[in-house]
Amino acid sequence: MIKVGVFGASGRVGRLLIEDLKTTQEMSLSSVYVRNPLDFAIDPSVLVTSDMKSFLNNCDIVIDFSLPEACEMLLEESINTPKPLVIGTTGLNTHQLNLLKQASEIMPVLYATNMSMGVALLNKLVYQASAALEDFDIEIVEMHHRHKKDAPSGTALTLSESAAQARGLDLNKVRVSGRDGNIGERSKDEIAVMALRGGDIVGRHTVGFYNDGEFIELNHTATSRNTFSKGALRAGKWLADKEPSLYNISDCLEL
Amino acid sequence: MIKVGVFGASGRVGRLLIEDLKTTQEMSLSSVYVRNPLDFAIDPSVLVTSDMKSFLNNCDIVIDFSLPEACEMLLEESINTPKPLVIGTTGLNTHQLNLLKQASEIMPVLYATNMSMGVALLNKLVYQASAALEDFDIEIVEMHHRHKKDAPSGTALTLSESAAQARGLDLNKVRVSGRDGNIGERSKDEIAVMALRGGDIVGRHTVGFYNDGEFIELNHTATSRNTFSKGALRAGKWLADKEPSLYNISDCLEL
Amino acid sequence: MIKVGVFGASGRVGRLLIEDLKTTQEMSLSSVYVRNPLDFAIDPSVLVTSDMKSFLNNCDIVIDFSLPEACEMLLEESINTPKPLVIGTTGLNTHQLNLLKQASEIMPVLYATNMSMGVALLNKLVYQASAALEDFDIEIVEMHHRHKKDAPSGTALTLSESAAQARGLDLNKVRVSGRDGNIGERSKDEIAVMALRGGDIVGRHTVGFYNDGEFIELNHTATSRNTFSKGALRAGKWLADKEPSLYNISDCLEL
Amino acid sequence: MIKVGVFGASGRVGRLLIEDLKTTQEMSLSSVYVRNPLDFAIDPSVLVTSDMKSFLNNCDIVIDFSLPEACEMLLEESINTPKPLVIGTTGLNTHQLNLLKQASEIMPVLYATNMSMGVALLNKLVYQASAALEDFDIEIVEMHHRHKKDAPSGTALTLSESAAQARGLDLNKVRVSGRDGNIGERSKDEIAVMALRGGDIVGRHTVGFYNDGEFIELNHTATSRNTFSKGALRAGKWLADKEPSLYNISDCLEL
Repeated sequence: MIKVGVFGASGRVGRLLIEDLKTTQEMSLSSVYVRNPLDFAIDPSVLVTSDMKSFLNNCDIVIDFSLPEACEMLLEESINTPKPLVIGTTGLNTHQLNLLKQASEIMPVLYATNMSMGVALLNKLVYQASAALEDFDIEIVEMHHRHKKDAPSGTALTLSESAAQARGLDLNKVRVSGRDGNIGERSKDEIAVMALRGGDIVGRHTVGFYNDGEFIELNHTATSRNTFSKGALRAGKWLADKEPSLYNISDCLEL
Repeated sequence: MIKVGVFGASGRVGRLLIEDLKTTQEMSLSSVYVRNPLDFAIDPSVLVTSDMKSFLNNCDIVIDFSLPEACEMLLEESINTPKPLVIGTTGLNTHQLNLLKQASEIMPVLYATNMSMGVALLNKLVYQASAALEDFDIEIVEMHHRHKKDAPSGTALTLSESAAQARGLDLNKVRVSGRDGNIGERSKDEIAVMALRGGDIVGRHTVGFYNDGEFIELNHTATSRNTFSKGALRAGKWLADKEPSLYNISDCLEL
Repeated sequence: MIKVGVFGASGRVGRLLIEDLKTTQEMSLSSVYVRNPLDFAIDPSVLVTSDMKSFLNNCDIVIDFSLPEACEMLLEESINTPKPLVIGTTGLNTHQLNLLKQASEIMPVLYATNMSMGVALLNKLVYQASAALEDFDIEIVEMHHRHKKDAPSGTALTLSESAAQARGLDLNKVRVSGRDGNIGERSKDEIAVMALRGGDIVGRHTVGFYNDGEFIELNHTATSRNTFSKGALRAGKWLADKEPSLYNISDCLEL
Repeated sequence: MIKVGVFGASGRVGRLLIEDLKTTQEMSLSSVYVRNPLDFAIDPSVLVTSDMKSFLNNCDIVIDFSLPEACEMLLEESINTPKPLVIGTTGLNTHQLNLLKQASEIMPVLYATNMSMGVALLNKLVYQASAALEDFDIEIVEMHHRHKKDAPSGTALTLSESAAQARGLDLNKVRVSGRDGNIGERSKDEIAVMALRGGDIVGRHTVGFYNDGEFIELNHTATSRNTFSKGALRAGKWLADKEPSLYNISDCLEL
């Protein structure tokens, strides 16, 4: 039984982690770190604390979905009390990313801003398809809800980066984000990354490879916003017995 | 049995028309107009002629897939020998379009630059969906082969025009052809028309309507370039007994 | 302001209706019918009652998502106190359906087992496409989550019924639910209705029309289970000023 | 320059091979085997022969799309004159398959009933996805034209076999080809392989992996029937310098 410490327990993913751990085999919740332990209602068998050292001492692995400054504190303290760390906090600055690299020299650290297993796998498959089908044209379409403010999505950029790298292309030079007017024939290397917006679509990405006579389309669709918790738990289980190093989510797919 | 005259018989669609007429019920080929009748091999029961008057006198309806100047000659002569005319020639200028309107006052004329029944139907469905689901966001994606030089396709523009008209929107003000960077939340009225290019895709159009909780996607896919001949024959059969007027392809869907 | 009475207020859709009414324009919650009024916490301006007559007297229209026996009581009482009725209860028996028809002779009654506007529209579009594209082959695919116990879905059956009726076909004679082995060429009239199951898919239906050279696919996807409440409210607003008759959800699309 | 011998040169794929070789880099047509050499018009630099030994002596590799009996003759003779063999003939019996294995001990032999690179790649991706996403439900949908007489397609069976093998499942025990009635909840291991038929669809296969919160769909679509020739040429180029062994099409993807 792997004892899990949840850091950022009062956040959205933190609460999902606590809920999902109730039904996860081979893992159990042992400690949660929050600022105000008295305000946090939970089963009495779980340690609720605002003391970083106690929190770390009371678990086998840590899963973190917090804010950059809180994550920074966690990384600093973990150097004294090393534990396998699954870090899902977004928006880390250069200093914090450096701390993360230092930590990964003395403990296993898995860092991912998207913990979806499906997206991680799609990314691997896109790389292979791009390399194996080198004469196929690549076009990517992503779709998200009407409230998303930036385009294309971070996931679409990651996928297009994989597709470009597999062919030795510089994404900045080949990426196209729209087409209008007398654009001429498609160039061999261009990679369109088109962003659709509408309704309450959680996230849909399609990477297509098109040739004379045949095409392949690889699609990932998120149906709820709860995939990060499940992915983080799977990542934590995988990370528990690994050597110190910096891992990413696709490492635990073990392809 | 409707006797069909094919005008532009040596062109790609003209040849398909002659082929398809062999297996079409209730219609038969009776005359073809070509410049050099001696060079044109065909069943001897068919009149092959370069004389416009004989050509027209020898058929019940005319199907035309030719060039603008040839079509102009046909329209001028038809005023003396009126016949139901199915006109599929593209690139007509203002003068030729005026001739076409004049002809439609004394005979039934169906004019369409895309004779696909599926596209005509999709256009009708898009109009209805746009009107009935007025709070749904509209996004359109078209895909064509890597050699297509303009974007978006004429069909995509027609579909987006239908979607806009059904809501009283001016397409020029609401059409979006790409998204990149910090674009902010989607505005209520915008209609994206995104163009994908790759492989040998004949033509694929998807019109999506997205709301909280549900979405609808209406798709048309062309699998070969031969749909124009079949559509023109269906249009000709429908047009044969109609009153003089200017019709379009969707009129013969009779929704 | 239309005063809405919610019947079956403690059910899943009932609770959603109460929630959605807080932000619905031109409609407000005025009364709820529940068995144990004392157990039901709600704004004191709303009448909470287990007395059918008071419930009906205190609203302009009724929306019902309950159980067959409860719905039967509602229909019986409504004959004495007629109100426009939106009935979303599933599983009504022959006797209950007869009561519903009787009620519709003295008040407007809208009966629908699926209140989604998108599905209602799709059903209309499928009918038109099936009639207009009579030589296209029809194939239907539905997909639902892994826990759904019956196949095909009620919605898929409704869609296939529309497709069949538009061509004068008897669905029982032409419906196919699987293909395996040496089945021979597809017959002209058969309509496949294939059921996929997996994950947490809320509901996805695709009706395809396939011909030589082109095909059309019309898709509806539910992204959450909350569409029934929104559809019922739209239906209620539409029904409020109608003549006595039995309506279905597509009537209020007003195509 | 690799000299290619085409066996079965008067068949559909044979003719495509001869056509495609005109524009293929690093390969050229050197000999064709046909029954009646006098009836076969081709560039005089190519050896046209009905003598197996001359045919084999005059090329570096052989590509065969013929009939089982002809292929049997080729395999028998190749033991005396070994050449890298790309075999695309379908319907080989047990004796012929044994001959093929014997030949592969003294020369490289690539045997595939589907030479599409896209399908070969999809098969690889499906295996990986099935293994990596072991808690996702698998559902497969194939679609072909209305004239196809068997179901599911050979390609769909190959894909479902890969999906099953990656999880240690016996496809015969878990394959489902239709769903109708009160079927109960989906079992964890079942793999649906659903066959759609209609229009002139050349071939479309979608393998889906569905879980709570997300799903992946991997699709291959053939847009023309000419993919076999291109795949066979790529396979031949790859096979030319390989050791004797029995290879399949996915070996030359070199993932």
